[in-house]
Amino acid sequence: MRWARFELNGRASYGLVEGDHVQPVAGTPFGEWQKQGERRPLAAVRLLVPVVPPTFYAAGLNYVEHIKEAAAMLGLKKPDKPDIGYRAINALIAHGEPIVIPRDASAEVQYEGELVAVVGKRAKHLSEAEALSCLLGFTIGNDVSERSWQKIDRTLWRAKNTDTFKPMGPWIETEVDLDKLVTGVRLNGRPCVRFDTNKMLFGVARYIAAMTRYVTLQPGDVIWMGTDGESEDMKAGDVVEVEISGIGVLRNPVTREA
Amino acid sequence: MRWARFELNGRASYGLVEGDHVQPVAGTPFGEWQKQGERRPLAAVRLLVPVVPPTFYAAGLNYVEHIKEAAAMLGLKKPDKPDIGYRAINALIAHGEPIVIPRDASAEVQYEGELVAVVGKRAKHLSEAEALSCLLGFTIGNDVSERSWQKIDRTLWRAKNTDTFKPMGPWIETEVDLDKLVTGVRLNGRPCVRFDTNKMLFGVARYIAAMTRYVTLQPGDVIWMGTDGESEDMKAGDVVEVEISGIGVLRNPVTREA
Repeated sequence: MRWARFELNGRASYGLVEGDHVQPVAGTPFGEWQKQGERRPLAAVRLLVPVVPPTFYAAGLNYVEHIKEAAAMLGLKKPDKPDIGYRAINALIAHGEPIVIPRDASAEVQYEGELVAVVGKRAKHLSEAEALSCLLGFTIGNDVSERSWQKIDRTLWRAKNTDTFKPMGPWIETEVDLDKLVTGVRLNGRPCVRFDTNKMLFGVARYIAAMTRYVTLQPGDVIWMGTDGESEDMKAGDVVEVEISGIGVLRNPVTREA
Repeated sequence: MRWARFELNGRASYGLVEGDHVQPVAGTPFGEWQKQGERRPLAAVRLLVPVVPPTFYAAGLNYVEHIKEAAAMLGLKKPDKPDIGYRAINALIAHGEPIVIPRDASAEVQYEGELVAVVGKRAKHLSEAEALSCLLGFTIGNDVSERSWQKIDRTLWRAKNTDTFKPMGPWIETEVDLDKLVTGVRLNGRPCVRFDTNKMLFGVARYIAAMTRYVTLQPGDVIWMGTDGESEDMKAGDVVEVEISGIGVLRNPVTREA
């Protein structure tokens, strides 16, 4: 199933994506729900971020090529265990909404295409074998990063959490074969980075098992799994797309603060 | 005014603290509200965390003595600008609830008493002069930290965000004279650290002005302002209290995972 969240009569509603239509539901995928109301053409609705997470987790350095790049740029080392990090919801935008580069940002505002695991059930103390059972499904994230701030700030707050720097969507796909996924990023239609999504340093199950030893995951929590390859600069007027086979395409235009 | 959040007929409700009673309200301090129902003795209600923040900000190194301690322990330097960090809501507990030390934690599980600013209104691009106008009020936090994990992990996730490691409360005080506040921590009734709350490296207004250049604050967001002085280890059976004059006392027992 594909769960979209969209604007319906001025309110946020969940719906099931059926071909090029969306079937509204009463309720949410995190609890009781039933189909309710007329199907609408997907092209006619405004998609929202598929969930506003209670906690917004991010794996950071989790792919070999990206670690080489980060090591060269920031002096970071290859992690020896899955220590999770955080992002912030002020930065979330939906599929189609503009990434707004602040006036004083450098030219180094870059995409990072990522797989996003969406938690469906409260979970603590999961083994690696049972870890994926707490998930509702997967969506796509673009971990937009301003590299000059990433270098000079003490935390990642404005480098990665400036308003509009976290596009997520277009929807949550519940049927996913992790090993078959391929992540690709396109800038203005030109293919850039491309990598096997599940070729991670620490996989989704490994992360969840490690995390739930100490923290309780809640329905709606998201875990961004990191990116691979080299990122390029984006500028006003560009359109960036992150595609993960079997999930969809997350497309966002880029603008600059007036 | 003092805003408490408490359990009423099995649901979370806001109320006004009036002496040793609480007057329930319909609505929340972040929107419309009116008094509704009977006053109850404070001692008879179960307090909840005064707000579950959409984004949970934390200043980190923001007092001179604490920076000396952190520098000695972790090699951290005095920050040259207010770069905000993050904590996570899975770790929040209310006044009176137990801090649970995980089975495999070291003996170095320490308190950090902190002033917490609670955002009342959506805010972006505030000047330092107008920054405090977006706040609803202030509460108290205990930024419980496991020092061995803080030293070896790549992020602060389990050192500071293990379940129950973020006591916050007991309520939100809206009338506060920042310059008059004094923060004190007691362990089993014995006074430990004590410092002038507002003697920060970067004050609340300075942080908010810097943050809102890039991020939109939302009603209910909290900003933990950091701690000063030396922290001591806590163990099962202890009771830790953080008092800030004019706000209240945040008291939590300490237990250990079975």
